[in-house]
Amino acid sequence: MTTFVLVHGAWGGAHTWRSVRPLLRTAGHAVFTPALTGIGERSHLVSPQVGLTTHVDDVANQIFYEGLDDIVLLGFSYGGMVITGALEHVGDRVRELVYLDAFVPDDGRSVVDLGGFDAGGPPGIGADWSIPPRVRTFDDPAEAAFAEPRRTPQPARTFTEPVRLARPLETLGIGLTYVKATRDARVSDRPDPFWEAADRVRDHPSWRYREIDSNHMVPQNRPAELAEVLFSLG
Amino acid sequence: MTTFVLVHGAWGGAHTWRSVRPLLRTAGHAVFTPALTGIGERSHLVSPQVGLTTHVDDVANQIFYEGLDDIVLLGFSYGGMVITGALEHVGDRVRELVYLDAFVPDDGRSVVDLGGFDAGGPPGIGADWSIPPRVRTFDDPAEAAFAEPRRTPQPARTFTEPVRLARPLETLGIGLTYVKATRDARVSDRPDPFWEAADRVRDHPSWRYREIDSNHMVPQNRPAELAEVLFSLG
Amino acid sequence: MTTFVLVHGAWGGAHTWRSVRPLLRTAGHAVFTPALTGIGERSHLVSPQVGLTTHVDDVANQIFYEGLDDIVLLGFSYGGMVITGALEHVGDRVRELVYLDAFVPDDGRSVVDLGGFDAGGPPGIGADWSIPPRVRTFDDPAEAAFAEPRRTPQPARTFTEPVRLARPLETLGIGLTYVKATRDARVSDRPDPFWEAADRVRDHPSWRYREIDSNHMVPQNRPAELAEVLFSLG
Repeated sequence: MTTFVLVHGAWGGAHTWRSVRPLLRTAGHAVFTPALTGIGERSHLVSPQVGLTTHVDDVANQIFYEGLDDIVLLGFSYGGMVITGALEHVGDRVRELVYLDAFVPDDGRSVVDLGGFDAGGPPGIGADWSIPPRVRTFDDPAEAAFAEPRRTPQPARTFTEPVRLARPLETLGIGLTYVKATRDARVSDRPDPFWEAADRVRDHPSWRYREIDSNHMVPQNRPAELAEVLFSLG
Repeated sequence: MTTFVLVHGAWGGAHTWRSVRPLLRTAGHAVFTPALTGIGERSHLVSPQVGLTTHVDDVANQIFYEGLDDIVLLGFSYGGMVITGALEHVGDRVRELVYLDAFVPDDGRSVVDLGGFDAGGPPGIGADWSIPPRVRTFDDPAEAAFAEPRRTPQPARTFTEPVRLARPLETLGIGLTYVKATRDARVSDRPDPFWEAADRVRDHPSWRYREIDSNHMVPQNRPAELAEVLFSLG
Repeated sequence: MTTFVLVHGAWGGAHTWRSVRPLLRTAGHAVFTPALTGIGERSHLVSPQVGLTTHVDDVANQIFYEGLDDIVLLGFSYGGMVITGALEHVGDRVRELVYLDAFVPDDGRSVVDLGGFDAGGPPGIGADWSIPPRVRTFDDPAEAAFAEPRRTPQPARTFTEPVRLARPLETLGIGLTYVKATRDARVSDRPDPFWEAADRVRDHPSWRYREIDSNHMVPQNRPAELAEVLFSLG
């Protein structure tokens, strides 16, 4: 029995995992899917004050309060920022980190640094602190009808706040896996952080590298393939 | 020397009073202009959680922490809701209430009840918790250029949360003044809460009733006339 | 006529300035005293999420929304962190910076870094995110009776979050003044950030250095002397 903690991405919510949870639970595993503050089911708590630190606390406190240990901690997309920041607090409770088509930040980096996003500005007259959802593609029209209305704006501070990571990931003694969704072609006119992360880790001896033939929305479009990858981590 | 506490309206901010403050201070009075959470200069603190109670606390806590007493407490427009709710906490520190083209709510009433507003709904998919600014008219183009970009969305809970008022205003032993801006014609296709308030108090023996020949934006458009009314309250 | 923006310290509030404001206003100056979120009159907004960034936004947004320019921006004690961080947003609106017995941080430094504080910990079971007020001494018993009950706990994130300062203070083309309260002896068993700041700037050609014979609580204990220093800045 493995304890999985699955962290969703920007503009998402815990419902991102609704097709993945039953696959893992039926196989006998424990699955926790923290809902990040200010988006999805926690959108009633949104504020310009919500930042990456808030989301790190969301994940760390679910782990603390549920008393979880020996965790496989997965971050999807922006969730890669969150699981990286959570290591400061719960690193000793994590057995394996899984970055699923995700940011793999070094210390002090933010989504804006890595992703070429224009995030909302600083305080000021007419300051825009909320970033509308990016268009995403769901293979199943029924899933699209479910997921699209549930995509919510993302508070900009989650993209501008830098992550803290005391030591490089490869020195922590935690297993490292990167899973790339390969159906999205690499973009060339701006940074492509998820392909750049793949380049960084593909041949690195500290990392396992896996691919899934899907666009970015793996949790909704390829839940069974994702579950297979997770089972294979042992 | 009188202590004035001036409470701004919806979509506004403490800067509403920038032309009024110097007139009162030059005449030797103390002037406090609390900034309501989530709008104007406090827009970085906005959240769906911000409601009428938050604003009542904003005003009551400024009065408590500054140690103010024997106050002339003025509410402009939506500020009438706020000063009414503040009486529960600081009623014994208020000498005179001034409603400036404002809501004059009975216990248990909200802006939505009184004003015919469609406020944002309860939580839900796509819930809209923020109400865009209404268009307002400033007589001076320079003031318009200053004020219009500073109008911010108003969190809906400030309009849906009912006010608490333990006893009718007329029984509190506090002076009562209503100031109507008379240049805005009464609307007939929906409730007109500021004219309805004028009707209620115009001939009431407990109230003083004054008029200023202006549209609704008296603090910006008629600061000198407003100061004269305030000086006349003694 | 000068525009003063006075930023209070930890465990304080805008009421810190109640004896200073009238001295400056009577002399014809404009005075703004932003209330920092989560303490003093804004203690009803306290939360573990409140950090240095929140306070920087409090000050920057008051300056933006009031349309202030050519400012003398003063930070008292912890307020030195806040005015330093505000320069990122409003540096071009500041004529003179005044640090009053205050932190003078370099880029990336926090109160915990500078001050030898034990701040509250990270998220976790029983996490302590609130720092009780330090004991302070007020010369006048009446002032003590007023001020002491108004001292509120300080959210720890204001002490742990590092400040951002793109370029050293001395290169910004803004006047720099440090005012040391000299009656508190330097402590030797832990860092003494306010004396260390005095050492840094005392003979620096970019700084003016002044002393006031008082303990740390200059705004309450020496308002007239403080006003004289401010008048002397021209």
